[in-house]
Amino acid sequence: MSRVQELIGEVTNPPFDIMRAAHVELVVSDLDASLHFYDTLLGMIVTERVDGAAYLRGWEEYLHHSLVLRQGPTPAVDHVALRVAGNEDLDALANEFEARGCEMRWVEAGEEPGQGRALRVQDPFGFPLEFFHDMDVVGANTQAFHLQRGAPILRFDHLNFHVSTPERVFTFWQQLGFRATEYISTDGEDEQLTGAWLRRKPTVHDVALTAGTGPRLHHFAMWLAEPSSVLRVCDQLAAAGHVHAIERGPGRHGVSNAFFVYLRDPDGHRIELYTCDYYTGDPDHPPLRWSVTDPRCRSFWGTRAPDSWYDESSQLLGLDGRVVATSPANVDERTEVMA
Amino acid sequence: MSRVQELIGEVTNPPFDIMRAAHVELVVSDLDASLHFYDTLLGMIVTERVDGAAYLRGWEEYLHHSLVLRQGPTPAVDHVALRVAGNEDLDALANEFEARGCEMRWVEAGEEPGQGRALRVQDPFGFPLEFFHDMDVVGANTQAFHLQRGAPILRFDHLNFHVSTPERVFTFWQQLGFRATEYISTDGEDEQLTGAWLRRKPTVHDVALTAGTGPRLHHFAMWLAEPSSVLRVCDQLAAAGHVHAIERGPGRHGVSNAFFVYLRDPDGHRIELYTCDYYTGDPDHPPLRWSVTDPRCRSFWGTRAPDSWYDESSQLLGLDGRVVATSPANVDERTEVMA
Amino acid sequence: MSRVQELIGEVTNPPFDIMRAAHVELVVSDLDASLHFYDTLLGMIVTERVDGAAYLRGWEEYLHHSLVLRQGPTPAVDHVALRVAGNEDLDALANEFEARGCEMRWVEAGEEPGQGRALRVQDPFGFPLEFFHDMDVVGANTQAFHLQRGAPILRFDHLNFHVSTPERVFTFWQQLGFRATEYISTDGEDEQLTGAWLRRKPTVHDVALTAGTGPRLHHFAMWLAEPSSVLRVCDQLAAAGHVHAIERGPGRHGVSNAFFVYLRDPDGHRIELYTCDYYTGDPDHPPLRWSVTDPRCRSFWGTRAPDSWYDESSQLLGLDGRVVATSPANVDERTEVMA
Amino acid sequence: MSRVQELIGEVTNPPFDIMRAAHVELVVSDLDASLHFYDTLLGMIVTERVDGAAYLRGWEEYLHHSLVLRQGPTPAVDHVALRVAGNEDLDALANEFEARGCEMRWVEAGEEPGQGRALRVQDPFGFPLEFFHDMDVVGANTQAFHLQRGAPILRFDHLNFHVSTPERVFTFWQQLGFRATEYISTDGEDEQLTGAWLRRKPTVHDVALTAGTGPRLHHFAMWLAEPSSVLRVCDQLAAAGHVHAIERGPGRHGVSNAFFVYLRDPDGHRIELYTCDYYTGDPDHPPLRWSVTDPRCRSFWGTRAPDSWYDESSQLLGLDGRVVATSPANVDERTEVMA
Repeated sequence: MSRVQELIGEVTNPPFDIMRAAHVELVVSDLDASLHFYDTLLGMIVTERVDGAAYLRGWEEYLHHSLVLRQGPTPAVDHVALRVAGNEDLDALANEFEARGCEMRWVEAGEEPGQGRALRVQDPFGFPLEFFHDMDVVGANTQAFHLQRGAPILRFDHLNFHVSTPERVFTFWQQLGFRATEYISTDGEDEQLTGAWLRRKPTVHDVALTAGTGPRLHHFAMWLAEPSSVLRVCDQLAAAGHVHAIERGPGRHGVSNAFFVYLRDPDGHRIELYTCDYYTGDPDHPPLRWSVTDPRCRSFWGTRAPDSWYDESSQLLGLDGRVVATSPANVDERTEVMA
Repeated sequence: MSRVQELIGEVTNPPFDIMRAAHVELVVSDLDASLHFYDTLLGMIVTERVDGAAYLRGWEEYLHHSLVLRQGPTPAVDHVALRVAGNEDLDALANEFEARGCEMRWVEAGEEPGQGRALRVQDPFGFPLEFFHDMDVVGANTQAFHLQRGAPILRFDHLNFHVSTPERVFTFWQQLGFRATEYISTDGEDEQLTGAWLRRKPTVHDVALTAGTGPRLHHFAMWLAEPSSVLRVCDQLAAAGHVHAIERGPGRHGVSNAFFVYLRDPDGHRIELYTCDYYTGDPDHPPLRWSVTDPRCRSFWGTRAPDSWYDESSQLLGLDGRVVATSPANVDERTEVMA
Repeated sequence: MSRVQELIGEVTNPPFDIMRAAHVELVVSDLDASLHFYDTLLGMIVTERVDGAAYLRGWEEYLHHSLVLRQGPTPAVDHVALRVAGNEDLDALANEFEARGCEMRWVEAGEEPGQGRALRVQDPFGFPLEFFHDMDVVGANTQAFHLQRGAPILRFDHLNFHVSTPERVFTFWQQLGFRATEYISTDGEDEQLTGAWLRRKPTVHDVALTAGTGPRLHHFAMWLAEPSSVLRVCDQLAAAGHVHAIERGPGRHGVSNAFFVYLRDPDGHRIELYTCDYYTGDPDHPPLRWSVTDPRCRSFWGTRAPDSWYDESSQLLGLDGRVVATSPANVDERTEVMA
Repeated sequence: MSRVQELIGEVTNPPFDIMRAAHVELVVSDLDASLHFYDTLLGMIVTERVDGAAYLRGWEEYLHHSLVLRQGPTPAVDHVALRVAGNEDLDALANEFEARGCEMRWVEAGEEPGQGRALRVQDPFGFPLEFFHDMDVVGANTQAFHLQRGAPILRFDHLNFHVSTPERVFTFWQQLGFRATEYISTDGEDEQLTGAWLRRKPTVHDVALTAGTGPRLHHFAMWLAEPSSVLRVCDQLAAAGHVHAIERGPGRHGVSNAFFVYLRDPDGHRIELYTCDYYTGDPDHPPLRWSVTDPRCRSFWGTRAPDSWYDESSQLLGLDGRVVATSPANVDERTEVMA
């Protein structure tokens, strides 16, 4: 058993139950332009719009929001949110992060529209995390096919973080109760983890870690019904004059087996439209290793991702509202494309 | 060689060039309801709306119209139209129908909006045919994916006639230069033709003949991009509260190999949404026979078509504006489902 | 809150963790014919074949089997199996069923090839249930696209039972820790439950209950990648001369939103090929009600299911190896198609 | 009207009827490797295999072959073939090429297995063209879905030539009776044609011209049923260890609207798998212009084609069996990607 396999084997059962990745709040420089992108072009539902912010959800989602767009001076990620199984999990998480010496604060019910009491922390690596349970039930629109447009976007699926120290961040998320489903590592004696996919809900992931300058948000991903939804949204974006929003794909991932396309929103925030991964919910589900030199690992069909996909991602705001400082990665995720 | 095979072998090269089936004009009892169906729900483009009539086309079509909806007291088919290669073909066709003793009249340029001079005839079996060449070029919208809705409908594909004497009508269309691509016949010594698919453009058909009470229009068909377009429009119709518009399908045809669904418009006119047939343009293309007892012939997956699909179709108007009388079929097309 | 809503609200957290529906063992009259159907035509993997039985799995499945075919004199269901989170759950379940006075027996490790110790019980309604945790890990073939055939079948999804007393059986499964995601009930004051979908894993269901003569297995369902997989397998079945295996569909379910087709295997056992349902894992996920008179409830596109789909299903074997007696249903599930 | 528009307007009706592009004969260095690629992986049918050569066709094709693979010392294109409407057209074409002073020879019936008498010419730009009418009818397998594998490949669609003088070659093909459906040209006063799509059958093209070092065969294209066929074959190629065969795509073309992928066979010959273009058969069908600077022209979604796609293509054999010399293009097709 290699050192990386040992690392992956260190699963834990912490005293709180994080159910899944749930939403992101993006700071955007032009709210109308962003709404045009996410609502009109990609096909999300605007649940509520207040002064300077909009709360959106997908067509299968019955909760108030899975994406917040907030007008601000500089594009950034205000926070990423995970839903816990009950309100008592918030207190257990507060204990956890207090013990780790992390900055945190309580968000009162209603401070984030549609949401109950929530815990905001800045995790040991700088990511602004929000944990919540209560959120207004506003109703799903799964079969309102006659109103759907764009992809359409059905539900929030996962978060992908650019991290400078993949193994350390990986251990942190395992300690929060996440389990690895797939990972990329270097070959040879000095095996190093360069990417990892961790899940709470029984899909391939809720949180993925990509080696790169971080902490930054590489992308968030929304779930579509099927591959033809991915093709349709590309056709529509190009037809509407937004061809430059298409950064990478459509294609099949080796990791996760999903069919995907990566888009850049008007501020450069990256969204993945994602479908077709697989069930991972049994406790003995074996994590799948990919060599960083396998050309099929990132793109099952071998297509090289553009440099921007490796180099660029969204900066984060700390709890103090200031941009979080970043460091370059200690391993090179891009070995695969240079092999 | 059987008698039916001999019949099919009697191909001709008449002195005129009918290119393809091109449009239908339907009399509808509520123009707004029909426009909601064809424009909003199925996704056609309204090129022009005049008092009491609307002219629609598909997204790939650059000519003025492929469907005319005209308000009138009683639902019926005003005429079905075929496009000829040049205006000189109209005169040659006038000679042909004069020799056959058919009623006919010239339609002046502009009498049918967007269309040039045209010939209207009532064929020997009672069908109101229009032949035309000139039509206004208004431009295709093939790649306006961001504006498309419904299926969407891309272009006119074919006509299907309910006829009481399939073999006689078959011979007539062969004499107009059409060629059989597929046919259904009874088994045994007394083989009889019960259905036929004839083409000018190199697809499976421009005109199909189905044994049944006729002359009536069984359906007209519009082409979609792919099977998922058929599924999408069914989802949208059901979601919009029009589930009763879905009469048969979606499914795969044995004949033609197409993927299809049959809908009934608000007046009961039947439209087929159709995709995926094959190239038939070489002169030695062998006509394909199906036995009327093969359950895969009408539905490759064996699903029984509802009785309405066999029994009901749209009545025709003659050149005098009166409903054309019908007779029951001399063979039973439905043998297949009773076998 | 109606009586049925109250019933649905009675969720429990029992002292055992059933993870999901996992496999079925069918008694088949001709093992070779059944293997041709499930392996060659539908595209499953044969993990192991022993004298008189075969153990199959889908392409995403890493465990030994999700379908057992066992040669026997009379077609029947030997047992249906659910996987529990750990071996300690087996003992807790034994306590539960002992308290209920159910017949049960322990299956030793290896008695069912590839499987560890398991508990077999005959539940209060006569269903032969197997609970297990340990099963040999033999490896997934998710991306062996070049070897896949048929649909292909990816993984086991759910069980559907014909039950004569839907509400009583519903309460039983809720007491085992299952939660309702959708249900069908009659309209009016005397609301009665006629169908229910209950889940452990966060999809629409692991177990569904359909009012009808029971106890019988209405069908088991396997997951496919996408709707085009469903269409492909129908094309292949018809081409291979197995058109009569296609009983109902393809189509979209109102309930569950899934795209489906129902097939009958050579012994008449019914298998559903199923894809595209939705995430249900949050504890406040609201159960969705359908009226039994809504034509879209069973078939979103309104297509009437054939009588056989309502009337026929697979008989069960008790722990004594004898066929379990059945009773007619106390409510009529078919009201919908008669409305 | 620009100079290029004038050029396109010069349509002719020559005294012969070329129906469509029909097949290619490739010289391959390892026949077994090539057969594995085209037969096993892409899913074509081997109609006949003789010593040192194999004759393949698609599943919809009833004629003997649409692809010939012939073992030889150096990969090259032996000839590309077009089917004419009748044998008399061969004589008319012989007159045409004699008048142009081209080298030619008659191929006797059976010299190319399965094919009747044919005319081979080396056209004024060096391309080895074969014209034929008679070919053995061996039967289509359109609905043999249970036997199909790979994409599968349904039929031959078109040829794409690398030419150093696009406008001169364009005029030549127009004089053979072809008509432009789409074209790419430079902007501004000195408009120059850099690419053109010409058709006989009523699809977007039988022959396309791409500016580049020529004469060479850029690719030949086979038709698939739908976009999901393109995705499937990519999954299968990657799974089978042939990921390097995928050169460009899958994607949507701006030109032609088709959904495509470009593959390189074991000798580097390029095949396009192609589906979803549109009907072009009416004589007033308006040619569609694209600016060479429009990023959507080659790839509707803006994805940059790799350099190899512009630089590499298959060398041609002359009638003397020697490789035809090439010259660099007089315009730059790649302006688009540098804009």
